[in-house]
Amino acid sequence: VEKIKIGLLGLGNVGSGVWNILNQNEDEIVNFLGKKLEVKKILVRNPEKVREINIPENILTTDIRQIIEDPEIDIVVEVMGGIHPAVECLKASLQNKKHVVTANKAAIATYGQELHQLALEQGVQLRYEASVCGGIPIINTLKNGLAANKIEEIVGIVNGTTNFILTQMSNQGMEFEEALKLAQDKGYAEADPSSDIYGEDAAFKLSILTSIAFNKNILPTEIPREGVTKISKKDIEYAFQLGYKIKLLATVARHKDFLECHVQPTLIPKTHPLAAVNDEFNALFVKGNAVGELMLYGKGAGSLATGSAVMGDILSIGKNIEIKAQTVTTKKKEDITLIGEGSGQYYVRFQVKDHPGVLGKIATLLGEYNVSLESVVQTGRNEERVPLIFITHEIERSLLNKALEEIVKYDEVIEIASIMKIKNL
Amino acid sequence: VEKIKIGLLGLGNVGSGVWNILNQNEDEIVNFLGKKLEVKKILVRNPEKVREINIPENILTTDIRQIIEDPEIDIVVEVMGGIHPAVECLKASLQNKKHVVTANKAAIATYGQELHQLALEQGVQLRYEASVCGGIPIINTLKNGLAANKIEEIVGIVNGTTNFILTQMSNQGMEFEEALKLAQDKGYAEADPSSDIYGEDAAFKLSILTSIAFNKNILPTEIPREGVTKISKKDIEYAFQLGYKIKLLATVARHKDFLECHVQPTLIPKTHPLAAVNDEFNALFVKGNAVGELMLYGKGAGSLATGSAVMGDILSIGKNIEIKAQTVTTKKKEDITLIGEGSGQYYVRFQVKDHPGVLGKIATLLGEYNVSLESVVQTGRNEERVPLIFITHEIERSLLNKALEEIVKYDEVIEIASIMKIKNL
Repeated sequence: VEKIKIGLLGLGNVGSGVWNILNQNEDEIVNFLGKKLEVKKILVRNPEKVREINIPENILTTDIRQIIEDPEIDIVVEVMGGIHPAVECLKASLQNKKHVVTANKAAIATYGQELHQLALEQGVQLRYEASVCGGIPIINTLKNGLAANKIEEIVGIVNGTTNFILTQMSNQGMEFEEALKLAQDKGYAEADPSSDIYGEDAAFKLSILTSIAFNKNILPTEIPREGVTKISKKDIEYAFQLGYKIKLLATVARHKDFLECHVQPTLIPKTHPLAAVNDEFNALFVKGNAVGELMLYGKGAGSLATGSAVMGDILSIGKNIEIKAQTVTTKKKEDITLIGEGSGQYYVRFQVKDHPGVLGKIATLLGEYNVSLESVVQTGRNEERVPLIFITHEIERSLLNKALEEIVKYDEVIEIASIMKIKNL
Repeated sequence: VEKIKIGLLGLGNVGSGVWNILNQNEDEIVNFLGKKLEVKKILVRNPEKVREINIPENILTTDIRQIIEDPEIDIVVEVMGGIHPAVECLKASLQNKKHVVTANKAAIATYGQELHQLALEQGVQLRYEASVCGGIPIINTLKNGLAANKIEEIVGIVNGTTNFILTQMSNQGMEFEEALKLAQDKGYAEADPSSDIYGEDAAFKLSILTSIAFNKNILPTEIPREGVTKISKKDIEYAFQLGYKIKLLATVARHKDFLECHVQPTLIPKTHPLAAVNDEFNALFVKGNAVGELMLYGKGAGSLATGSAVMGDILSIGKNIEIKAQTVTTKKKEDITLIGEGSGQYYVRFQVKDHPGVLGKIATLLGEYNVSLESVVQTGRNEERVPLIFITHEIERSLLNKALEEIVKYDEVIEIASIMKIKNL
């Protein structure tokens, strides 16, 4: 049987997954390709390191040239993670006319345009299904299955760590810190969880999705984002009473003359399928002008789930290896202005001193700014601090912010504890 | 711009959808392909018929030879539906070396093997994403994204009509007949709804999924199936009290030495994502040995949703039109025996006369057949007919059936109103 040879860059969590799938599912792979796949070389930092998987020592190398300069290697698979030196390795591989598969969201989100251009020039394929939500085939679906659609909106739960935390807060009544601790104990959150909990990881993925679905390159740093650290158990309870669940959503939506794009905690109806996405699972809800509503749900991380997506890309390239065609979609650039948030319905929770008239005072000022209200909830009488929750009608966020700047000056107002968008999906 | 020319067979619901998407999303299509798509000829029964869409009269024809013998036509798109004469048209198209896209579940489920063989011989592509669950990209995902997985199980809500009916029964407290009527009024069910409500439509789709995921050709008629006509509002209420929702599931699962494959109403946990699939929506839950759990959710029918999937196939072929390669996956045949149902946990509802001792009598007999019970519910005292619900532990269905054959002979037992599997997904 003919062989397709792979150079693997990195042998961590995802790299081991790829190795394991290659061995465990050899039959499926040969049946699909009609050829064998062989990992010829693996780039690692330390070849001496003791590993859980059994790898022949002679295929480990610390020198990337052993991979990119080897004419027998057809496909380079980058699973090192991080931006540097991953981007340099990706470029060097493409420059050496290797097809490239990567799972690296940070590199693709930040250098995607440049890497695509390079692949195009070199006539090789660049694939990165695993870079967004691990095992969920969202990129292939957007690029191929939905190719004839004008995409109107993508709303996703794209970060498993924060979804696990919110699920624990919601189902077990934990506070944020406790749920984060549990996520760390279970290996869903890293020792330094900042990239997850402040929304950076979600912004990487949203940047990639936006470039594919809207042909708009937005750097992850340009995406307005808010994490989950300010959400309290109380917010989750109040939201639930009002018929909502709180999820950290990555959103990109086409409006008449602008593109809405942001990462933020959002109240969604309890009955919506996204509300049933729990624990460490991810889901992407897509609206296309032909297909209507589509949702993809699965594991967004993990050695084998992410490895599955990497393998899918390797096999797609392997199937067309003779054809040095590029698969880059060159959509016409659309002239759309990016904006963060625009308008919406909002949930605002104040902590106030329990003085008579405070509710009326706040409501009156909101009215002066044309912020009209759908409902108001006041609970817990006769305490030092009482929560006061306002649900607004549709309104510009900027206008709401102006009103809130005034309200926060009132003596009776201790703090604005939460502002969250409500999305009546 | 270069053109790819299409011959369309049929101009009903799906055909109109394809035509509309082609016109409405022309920009997206040209951006993807770098070429234009043109429908050169459309096969219809009656060219004089008044249609909602505006089609140039000179492209309509009643003679398929005008399409399959036209050397300018690259792709034939079959959206006539039904088995005959669709299968003959599909064969003739392949024999004339046309790439073929079809949305025809009945034809693919019944003649898929023969059609694949023909496509292979002629060196053309045969694609049928739209044949299973309309806009949901399940076939492409199974064939490509999950190519490196050993698929363990597919559980799907694959029929929108029955899911709409069950949703109405569950949320609005309707009985079956009333919900069916509403489905017909809304256009979700046909005047003759038998193919939907007795599970034939689901069996077509399950047959196709089984051939792709398990490389096992099972005729739709070989798949044991049960429809939704025997489910009563009461069953839905009892199931809900026990923590379950009732869904019509198409299931195929790999066991150690056999393949489980059937269509039947099933109790699934309320909290499972499949339980949140309501109204006319479809969803497919897939377990792969690498990717883990994956679910795809969307519209399983409708002019534009199904048209979106047809267009995806057309564009995939269009992108590789120069390459007359076949994309048929030739998986190694697995030696697996098909069985219908095997074992499971069951929900059984009896209607009995309210005589003392009847519960004990039934429970005793079940015990004699080694049917052990998880719980028993008896409600509605002092009525002529009372329901008696048994939830069994895991047990062989054949054994349960034997016990039920005895029980139904008791004078106190009016009928066995429902037997449904419980799947603790």
